[in-house]
Amino acid sequence: MVILGIDPGLATLGYGVIESTGSKNRLIQYGTLNTPKGVAIPFRLQAILRGMNQLLDIYQPEEVAFEELFFSKNITTGINVSMARGVALVAVAERTNNLFEYTPMQIKQAVTGYGKADKHQVQSMVKMLLGMDEIARPDDAADALAVALTHASCRKTGQMFRIQ
Amino acid sequence: MVILGIDPGLATLGYGVIESTGSKNRLIQYGTLNTPKGVAIPFRLQAILRGMNQLLDIYQPEEVAFEELFFSKNITTGINVSMARGVALVAVAERTNNLFEYTPMQIKQAVTGYGKADKHQVQSMVKMLLGMDEIARPDDAADALAVALTHASCRKTGQMFRIQ
Repeated sequence: MVILGIDPGLATLGYGVIESTGSKNRLIQYGTLNTPKGVAIPFRLQAILRGMNQLLDIYQPEEVAFEELFFSKNITTGINVSMARGVALVAVAERTNNLFEYTPMQIKQAVTGYGKADKHQVQSMVKMLLGMDEIARPDDAADALAVALTHASCRKTGQMFRIQ
Repeated sequence: MVILGIDPGLATLGYGVIESTGSKNRLIQYGTLNTPKGVAIPFRLQAILRGMNQLLDIYQPEEVAFEELFFSKNITTGINVSMARGVALVAVAERTNNLFEYTPMQIKQAVTGYGKADKHQVQSMVKMLLGMDEIARPDDAADALAVALTHASCRKTGQMFRIQ
């Protein structure tokens, strides 16, 4: 079962691909899609759509998990992240109806066993759980791996959160 | 010059198509794309993508104008509208780089000559400017015609606002 985790964003969208078999999770790939600030937003969104389509073509994930959106102080950032999320969701919806989402607290709980873990604790556990030599960089990619691992963990207990 | 006006939304996206020649504007079509609340958001976004692609196929607009997004009291609504806007923008970006946006105040100013006009005044002017028998319904469609007319008016004075 290939799982794609997504941490949505307009400037940087993090992705993480794992293969989950029984209780074993294997790292396949992770990284970011980046869109430059100087480009007009519609074309940054287009780059995200194309990047998502490439990821879906290459890794053919059976299930896709998103980090749930929460609003920050900055409204413009919030609008941009939401637009990027909308585009990423629609790219996935064209391929599969297995879309899931998890809150930051659910992710911390699933990955570290503690819902208020800090970023470093989550990243260290991601590294350990996937047998990586180093912590994944940048943060957006590490977060995307964390949400993929969260979905893998929630599948086992049947506690998956489908996007409504 | 065919202009498509868009008032973005997840439940209801308004659209209005006009043909603008010199100082004359002719109504071509208007309406809404609606997505039902019971359907999961990724598939509502997918319906918006498909609906936008149909509009673009049918009317082949040379320029597309969006009503600019402002955030309401309700964060969930704000996220949903932003996601729908992102999907609509990306559909247009695949066809043309002529994307524009106008604030509610710019629209009121352009259509009625008064930046603080109320909704009814705007709708009455849209009806008059396009020689319609009745005020366009629902509001989202009337708003979309208003943004299309705003863009037509701003083109004449060279005061167009390209989406950055």
